[in-house]
Amino acid sequence: MQVLAIDIGGTNVKFLTGNATEPRRFPSGPTLTPQAMVEQILAATADWHFDAVTIGYPGPVVYNKILLEPKNLGRGWIGYDFAAALGKPTKLINDAAMQALGSYEGGRMLFLGLGTGLGTTLIIDKVIAPMELAHLPYRKGRTFEDYVGERGLVKLGKKKWHRAVFDVTMRLKAALVADYVVLGGGNAKKLEELPPGARLGNNANAFTGGFRLWHDYE
Amino acid sequence: MQVLAIDIGGTNVKFLTGNATEPRRFPSGPTLTPQAMVEQILAATADWHFDAVTIGYPGPVVYNKILLEPKNLGRGWIGYDFAAALGKPTKLINDAAMQALGSYEGGRMLFLGLGTGLGTTLIIDKVIAPMELAHLPYRKGRTFEDYVGERGLVKLGKKKWHRAVFDVTMRLKAALVADYVVLGGGNAKKLEELPPGARLGNNANAFTGGFRLWHDYE
Repeated sequence: MQVLAIDIGGTNVKFLTGNATEPRRFPSGPTLTPQAMVEQILAATADWHFDAVTIGYPGPVVYNKILLEPKNLGRGWIGYDFAAALGKPTKLINDAAMQALGSYEGGRMLFLGLGTGLGTTLIIDKVIAPMELAHLPYRKGRTFEDYVGERGLVKLGKKKWHRAVFDVTMRLKAALVADYVVLGGGNAKKLEELPPGARLGNNANAFTGGFRLWHDYE
Repeated sequence: MQVLAIDIGGTNVKFLTGNATEPRRFPSGPTLTPQAMVEQILAATADWHFDAVTIGYPGPVVYNKILLEPKNLGRGWIGYDFAAALGKPTKLINDAAMQALGSYEGGRMLFLGLGTGLGTTLIIDKVIAPMELAHLPYRKGRTFEDYVGERGLVKLGKKKWHRAVFDVTMRLKAALVADYVVLGGGNAKKLEELPPGARLGNNANAFTGGFRLWHDYE
């Protein structure tokens, strides 16, 4: 079965099928509606064959349903019938969880998404558990996200941010009893070294996660 | 299949099968060896029929193996062959995880064991994930366990401890995205009210957890 995986970002919508070689993309942005996205997807994939679709959505998704309108896109996403519009069975998943799933190599994995905020997903024995660890207290009345998110990077500077990422990674790895940590998100590539037990994620893993959601989960 | 569930505590060893009506017990303590326990179990269950055994052990257990000698019992527990000694297939599980499993009612459950320390177990879609959230930072350079464990109760007094249990329960429920929290352990019954989204565990659930480990997990 061929799966079309769609990764919706604030700048671009990127998509790939398992039998294509290069992802394709078109611009995203604050006016993008789901209808406009679907039309561009269908036009841009007319020469691709696929049987099912996974959409990585930048916001909370529970039981295949979008819970909140996106922060950086147009409106109308909640309740939109993607399967009908695309004409294919479609699964929705949070974008960070999709990348986490693509990075999964068995056992207990903690995925930390270092971006504007701090995304956290635990995968354990193939069960995907999105977490909200970002807002737990860390130091001086501030949260983990305050230190290792974008605001932390700006405020602390790169050196102290680096140190905070190491400390937070090791603490959360121990607390969640993870076998390994994968560091993804836009700021992960700013790390010059990786904390012990951590691996670097790759944005391309998001597509792998989209494929796996159909192949490994019924 | 009948299962004998054994709950090893610091004061008593308690045990029950699914077809018996009342748990039986004998004293535990700092000199109890696994061999002595097995002999007393076999003597006390001669009139009970069972096909398999679950042992809830007061310490870390991974992949059916004891990782550390117990704090409050005799020696020789690591590597002891319980299946051979009992003459029945035997599974080992951490005692808090066994109680958590017995309290599980589906979805995502966070079990908080309020005792000497703070035990934490997440069960999600039937996957049991022992956690070590107790030592994450909470306030003023102290950890969650410092506030809600036995030391916290002694130091803070009942009223402030009560407030800390409410706050910690709500924070951890949100962070782990749990559908509900079960509060177990010896100090849970000292709570006069329960935090929103929390239920009270029951020590008897430990036996249920021991039965389920054989019935719901191959």
